[in-house]
Amino acid sequence: MDPYSDRQLFGRTLKLEGARTAVIVIDMLNDFCTNEGLLGNPAALSLCENQNRVMDKVRASGGLVIFVNEQHREMLKPQREFGKRMTHTIEGTWGAAVISDLTIEDADLAVVKRRYSGFFQTDLDLILRDRLITSVVLMGVLANICVRATAHDAFFQGYDVVVPEDCVGSMTPSEQNSTLYDIGTHFGWVTDAAAVVNALDSGQPLTNTVILGVHK
Amino acid sequence: MDPYSDRQLFGRTLKLEGARTAVIVIDMLNDFCTNEGLLGNPAALSLCENQNRVMDKVRASGGLVIFVNEQHREMLKPQREFGKRMTHTIEGTWGAAVISDLTIEDADLAVVKRRYSGFFQTDLDLILRDRLITSVVLMGVLANICVRATAHDAFFQGYDVVVPEDCVGSMTPSEQNSTLYDIGTHFGWVTDAAAVVNALDSGQPLTNTVILGVHK
Amino acid sequence: MDPYSDRQLFGRTLKLEGARTAVIVIDMLNDFCTNEGLLGNPAALSLCENQNRVMDKVRASGGLVIFVNEQHREMLKPQREFGKRMTHTIEGTWGAAVISDLTIEDADLAVVKRRYSGFFQTDLDLILRDRLITSVVLMGVLANICVRATAHDAFFQGYDVVVPEDCVGSMTPSEQNSTLYDIGTHFGWVTDAAAVVNALDSGQPLTNTVILGVHK
Amino acid sequence: MDPYSDRQLFGRTLKLEGARTAVIVIDMLNDFCTNEGLLGNPAALSLCENQNRVMDKVRASGGLVIFVNEQHREMLKPQREFGKRMTHTIEGTWGAAVISDLTIEDADLAVVKRRYSGFFQTDLDLILRDRLITSVVLMGVLANICVRATAHDAFFQGYDVVVPEDCVGSMTPSEQNSTLYDIGTHFGWVTDAAAVVNALDSGQPLTNTVILGVHK
Repeated sequence: MDPYSDRQLFGRTLKLEGARTAVIVIDMLNDFCTNEGLLGNPAALSLCENQNRVMDKVRASGGLVIFVNEQHREMLKPQREFGKRMTHTIEGTWGAAVISDLTIEDADLAVVKRRYSGFFQTDLDLILRDRLITSVVLMGVLANICVRATAHDAFFQGYDVVVPEDCVGSMTPSEQNSTLYDIGTHFGWVTDAAAVVNALDSGQPLTNTVILGVHK
Repeated sequence: MDPYSDRQLFGRTLKLEGARTAVIVIDMLNDFCTNEGLLGNPAALSLCENQNRVMDKVRASGGLVIFVNEQHREMLKPQREFGKRMTHTIEGTWGAAVISDLTIEDADLAVVKRRYSGFFQTDLDLILRDRLITSVVLMGVLANICVRATAHDAFFQGYDVVVPEDCVGSMTPSEQNSTLYDIGTHFGWVTDAAAVVNALDSGQPLTNTVILGVHK
Repeated sequence: MDPYSDRQLFGRTLKLEGARTAVIVIDMLNDFCTNEGLLGNPAALSLCENQNRVMDKVRASGGLVIFVNEQHREMLKPQREFGKRMTHTIEGTWGAAVISDLTIEDADLAVVKRRYSGFFQTDLDLILRDRLITSVVLMGVLANICVRATAHDAFFQGYDVVVPEDCVGSMTPSEQNSTLYDIGTHFGWVTDAAAVVNALDSGQPLTNTVILGVHK
Repeated sequence: MDPYSDRQLFGRTLKLEGARTAVIVIDMLNDFCTNEGLLGNPAALSLCENQNRVMDKVRASGGLVIFVNEQHREMLKPQREFGKRMTHTIEGTWGAAVISDLTIEDADLAVVKRRYSGFFQTDLDLILRDRLITSVVLMGVLANICVRATAHDAFFQGYDVVVPEDCVGSMTPSEQNSTLYDIGTHFGWVTDAAAVVNALDSGQPLTNTVILGVHK
């Protein structure tokens, strides 16, 4: 028996309320998701259909869609290491824009972030509190880096965290599986796009698909 | 003898290094500073000459100029009290733009804030750290609200805080004097524009003009 | 007409719910409040009766009492300016303990802070969220420094802020009046101990006693 | 070629300066590390020899040792989910104390945290800045949860992050390897205890042992 079972989320379900739910779309930007991008992982494009489907359903249910985009200042001339390594997604460039495969509606919001987590020194928490959001559905190009870092902070702040596994990417299956296992055991609910849509349609609670002790 | 004298900054001086100094210009926006603005205090315009003078000197000394602008999201449809009261400086409007009396150079940076303090859920601290800034010169339209709130957080984070009294405004002299006294005794150095310019020119240290026990 | 009237809290009332209310008692410590203390302002002792009265009523109404205490690490050997100036309220000493004139109950909580604001790098916000607190009643030894700094952050985070003027002290009446005016116009409700007790007893809403344009 | 190589840390080395280095020991507590603990993973005890060795060397080099301990308030009576699940490491209990296998010196510091990350709503960042620390060596009972969460925030704040792999534990090798790969590619330097000791002894720079594209 895993000694951390007391802490996990197994056996608990989550009831999503449309008006209290936000989709957070993380770093689906040209530089990260296209062949022409500076760090392009074009496999990211295969996530768009599921992402659009979940966003549409959340909007139709009275919820909020927020695009959280890593963008760096050209004028920063940074001297610290992070800055030195950042040569991508410069503010105002094509590479820093959301890919055209995703639909953006007028009522959606955008948040600029500077580090992996969408919460770090941004107004994301203020937006969620002002809109009385309690559940966040996270999706994005890199499950094990930016999505996960955002999941950490969302969980610390007390939000219910939902990650549909067919709406997030990774460089390798191993990174994807490890991160989903950690999220499902310590940070929130791992599920898929169809289950999120169904939960909002039917009012039925979501279940966590991660199975304790079975590292997916 | 004031029992808090141990805590104060009297008798200490501050040596400004140009490359380690940032000017932070707070809320010098059309809605706050012009007759046509929604909350316009046109007395703010009389500050611009001094503000421009300090900014020019800091730029010439290798320092950084940052405009910190309170701007609110139109799409937020906020349900909490702060949002309900905010009908000014909406993102993208004329009212939310920096007044034309101030000079903005290409190398200057802009930070959007949502509350009175320039540090609250913004990347201002990241910018200052990335640029190795240790001293901040604060100026802006309301000494006792936005400038002061920013002075609090700058001091908590360990920056040396300088407020030139002829670069900040208030609705009444009483509010101005009280806030400068508090800043000079508990948060940093109160001085004026000429002294900041001279300190950067001459390399001589700044002195604090607030006198303990004499509430200006 | 004051151009900032749009922003103020005049004319609005606040309904306190006992279970959603926390009293935050700030820096009522031996070093700050007694003749024997390192920075003792013994006038602070005259606040205790009102403070105890409000705390008792909030506890009886199902609310929470939190003592927020500025305490500094002896082992820090700090090299930055704040540390150099701090020679008071060292962790574990008599000077850093809450004065014996205030009643502490078993269910009360204590939070250690390192700077003036009770929220800065502490778990105060987590506690308030975990207990579903929406209104905070602030009291303490220095209205214009630690109480005010805490009021700033409470307001930024979305809490309704209440400051009973007969539960907070200052070095001079001018500092007291200026800070209460700023709080009443920009951060929350200024009232007194009797009004808070009555509001919790009667269920009637609190009114703000600050009058716009009349600098108390 | 991995498209994220631009971002990674491969090929870069890190020179540790003793006086600028802190060891952060995360959650080496009775409840997490002993058979008698509520969530005890006794494999954690096998890490202590390496951990003590690194701590001794950092102390001897003029650096700082900080124990960051997850402890929960008994009096919180929390109503949110995190609180409901937390029945371990209650403040003041044996379970919340650092295991006796680790040596604690008088000059070491302790920080209480409430969530997985040592930085979340604690004064850890203040301590590091006050001591002019630039590099942090992280060790602890769960590489993929508390150590990793702390690595995220340390990296975001601009510290150089070092994780000696023989000083951190995991429930399974897969979790250990995945997290070390992510840390070595996106957050800092993965190395071992002997290399850290040698770097401080010899002044030679540390290298990152994670190899790009080879998921350990």
